[in-house]
Amino acid sequence: MAKAPVLTPQADDFPRWYQDLINKAELADNGPVRGTMVIRPYGYSLWERMQQELDARIKEAGASNAYFPLFIPQSYLTREAEHVEGFSPELAVVTHGGGKELEEPVVVRPTSETIINEYFSKWVQSYRDLPLLINQWANVVRWEMRPRVFLRTSEFLWQEGHTAHATYEDARAYAERILHRVYADFMVNVLGISVVPGRKTAKERFAGAINTLTLEGMMRDGKALQLGTSHELGQNFAKAFNTQYLAADGGREHVWQTSWGVSTRMVGGLIMSHGDDNGLRVPPRLAPVQAVVLAIKEDEAVVAKVREVGERLKAAGVRVVVDDRTDTPFGRRAVDWELKGVPVRVEIGPRDLQGGTAMLARRIAGGKEPARIDELPQTVTAVLAEDQELLLRQSREFREARTADVATLGEAAEAAATGWARIPWSEVGPEGEAKLAEQGVTVRCLVAEDGSVPDDDDTPGVLAVIGRAY
Amino acid sequence: MAKAPVLTPQADDFPRWYQDLINKAELADNGPVRGTMVIRPYGYSLWERMQQELDARIKEAGASNAYFPLFIPQSYLTREAEHVEGFSPELAVVTHGGGKELEEPVVVRPTSETIINEYFSKWVQSYRDLPLLINQWANVVRWEMRPRVFLRTSEFLWQEGHTAHATYEDARAYAERILHRVYADFMVNVLGISVVPGRKTAKERFAGAINTLTLEGMMRDGKALQLGTSHELGQNFAKAFNTQYLAADGGREHVWQTSWGVSTRMVGGLIMSHGDDNGLRVPPRLAPVQAVVLAIKEDEAVVAKVREVGERLKAAGVRVVVDDRTDTPFGRRAVDWELKGVPVRVEIGPRDLQGGTAMLARRIAGGKEPARIDELPQTVTAVLAEDQELLLRQSREFREARTADVATLGEAAEAAATGWARIPWSEVGPEGEAKLAEQGVTVRCLVAEDGSVPDDDDTPGVLAVIGRAY
Ligand SMILES: [Zn+2]
Ligand SMILES: [Zn+2]
Repeated sequence: MAKAPVLTPQADDFPRWYQDLINKAELADNGPVRGTMVIRPYGYSLWERMQQELDARIKEAGASNAYFPLFIPQSYLTREAEHVEGFSPELAVVTHGGGKELEEPVVVRPTSETIINEYFSKWVQSYRDLPLLINQWANVVRWEMRPRVFLRTSEFLWQEGHTAHATYEDARAYAERILHRVYADFMVNVLGISVVPGRKTAKERFAGAINTLTLEGMMRDGKALQLGTSHELGQNFAKAFNTQYLAADGGREHVWQTSWGVSTRMVGGLIMSHGDDNGLRVPPRLAPVQAVVLAIKEDEAVVAKVREVGERLKAAGVRVVVDDRTDTPFGRRAVDWELKGVPVRVEIGPRDLQGGTAMLARRIAGGKEPARIDELPQTVTAVLAEDQELLLRQSREFREARTADVATLGEAAEAAATGWARIPWSEVGPEGEAKLAEQGVTVRCLVAEDGSVPDDDDTPGVLAVIGRAY
Repeated sequence: MAKAPVLTPQADDFPRWYQDLINKAELADNGPVRGTMVIRPYGYSLWERMQQELDARIKEAGASNAYFPLFIPQSYLTREAEHVEGFSPELAVVTHGGGKELEEPVVVRPTSETIINEYFSKWVQSYRDLPLLINQWANVVRWEMRPRVFLRTSEFLWQEGHTAHATYEDARAYAERILHRVYADFMVNVLGISVVPGRKTAKERFAGAINTLTLEGMMRDGKALQLGTSHELGQNFAKAFNTQYLAADGGREHVWQTSWGVSTRMVGGLIMSHGDDNGLRVPPRLAPVQAVVLAIKEDEAVVAKVREVGERLKAAGVRVVVDDRTDTPFGRRAVDWELKGVPVRVEIGPRDLQGGTAMLARRIAGGKEPARIDELPQTVTAVLAEDQELLLRQSREFREARTADVATLGEAAEAAATGWARIPWSEVGPEGEAKLAEQGVTVRCLVAEDGSVPDDDDTPGVLAVIGRAY
């Protein structure tokens, strides 16, 4: 009799597989207030590693971290017309504070363009103060009617960057720089997800932006997940909040702005990009635990050896955990590390000591092979590098295999049943986009034929990438 | 004619000096909603360094980071009677979400004991799951009637640790461990504040705790600031949330718990512990910028040299900034770095290049002296180490000089006008404590004669440390 699978297989029920994995790998729980989530330690350690990698890239791009209040006066939201229209249905409103009804209700931030512009308008005086490049790590609240852990939650964690520039060109270049050098670089080279950079159609743009750049990933069910966006805000918020600077020529000008964000949604994207029927597979560069060294059974020499190997791997720069909990059956521990997607397991038992070898199990490439214990630091380091590349290659090949070049709307909708379609945007247009939306299919982004991000929608040869999305 | 001082002198008006410094050093602004604050980049960089140092110590103490929701069902708060009584007057309440009135209003977390216990009661099954050691970095909201930036704000940033243990002794030892090895170690050795560890009286205890341990710092106006607390919660929350475990002997037991936190209030404590009439003085181990290398005037060779010196200091492990903004007058830049409290300024002008020396200005010890440019990495490193010690010594000497050993309540109240009093707790007791409170004077903590933390209030020889507090 075959053993019951640990998780519902992906092919049977992908959403159920996703939820099973989150429970069994102890990534998160549902919160008591509808749509909120509790991020458990292992899930949070994935987010912490994402933060570290992104924070370094954000600082490299010249931005400084700061912190703006959670509570925004309701009146701020209404100053930018499209912005308030976009966010009103999702707001949480505080009406009582300190035992009294508030004179003006305050909104729990859904995003911080408004409150940040209020301060930019004070801090920016002259062209010497520009560019002003700010980032904040924070929680935000958007009331969610159809919540799903990590993907759509009423409260989520994110970073939001907000910048002010002297010219349209500077702002545009910075929004591009964040998209490519911060977000895409992180997603491709650390998360191992072969994201597609593109430009959103007017319909899919951020509320208040003049242009939204996006990174779209294909999940293992063929659906798209928007993993990060970088917006050009033009002068919309600058005009609403009167954020002006004294130019070198003595005139007063409104600043040009950008905003950009990525969130805990990326944890969901990580799971659905790389996970398989045995659990998560975490890319080595991201992994909070890159290797675990397991003592197969209680034995003094074995326990001493796993600890020694742990020390040697640590000295070689590997993020390693030693699992010598021999009072828990080995099989259960192995399944648990597999669920958690730790890239490498080194398994050592009494017999291995004599031969000077251990079993090395590779979560990403799969399979087990014997490895010389004295060479483990080099072997594990090489395997981690190899499997980082492998995940990215699998992600790219999967996306390419599931993307069809098509010529008609009907073919596009058909392709979206199992993956994405690429079709000339001139064949779709806003009307075609509306028709597709009736079938739950959206234009994920517009791309140029060479894969670059087009400067505007009507550049000749612009393609629409079409699919179903989370 | 003497120049107008940059800040209101401390001796003239300490609270005004504090606010001046926060404005001029660009640490923070008031938020639009009463009692909230905007933490500006330089202020936030101080907090980020505090987070890094504390996070490493918290992980060293075995705790893992996680994240619990901002929104707590109102009903959770009421389950622990003292807890709800303590926090009710400070709550912010969300009544509307997603455009509708909520069925049950939710509270914005003032602290997370309740919601975390709800999950501990699910996660803890047997003694094997204990101790469960969790920490979270988060924002919390406590509606504030008399706000002051960093010290008392309606929203603040903090870490809150929450742990569950099998026995009273384990929980007690862990609360102590956090107090000494995480908080006191950080405050003394990084912040350079000579804090006094002690035990709170019943009156000053955290709402729901059986014992509160505290670290009290003396500010430069002689008042006390509570910089961190570590609580033994006993089984109060365990009973309210039914957090039980299966013991090794087969019985079911309630867990024993701790909680502990420090917040952005520490930034206020840093300012008031070390600041002087010229601005902030940041301890080198904390400082986000330990040294700044300034080009005195526009000159190609000078600018090349400051950059080279910057690179060499960076290579020597110094957190350094190069200031070659020669279009801003040198004097203004020097005052600005002084306000921001950067420990070392290296000033280089055209004449210095010939002599191979630079001026080295020490913000902490004071004064300027010439230093050989080629020896700067060693010189600066030595100065930073020396001035870290100096700040701590000044903090300790100031506190000792302003602390009087007294015998009567009257003398204690008198001493509290300029500093602290130490008096046998047996001379004060809950009645004396109530009398002092009428004069705005509080028992900051109880200490043993040898400076250690007493096990309970009525240990013979226990002393009360008495003062005015923020
Ligand atoms: Zn581009
Ligand atoms: Zn102690």
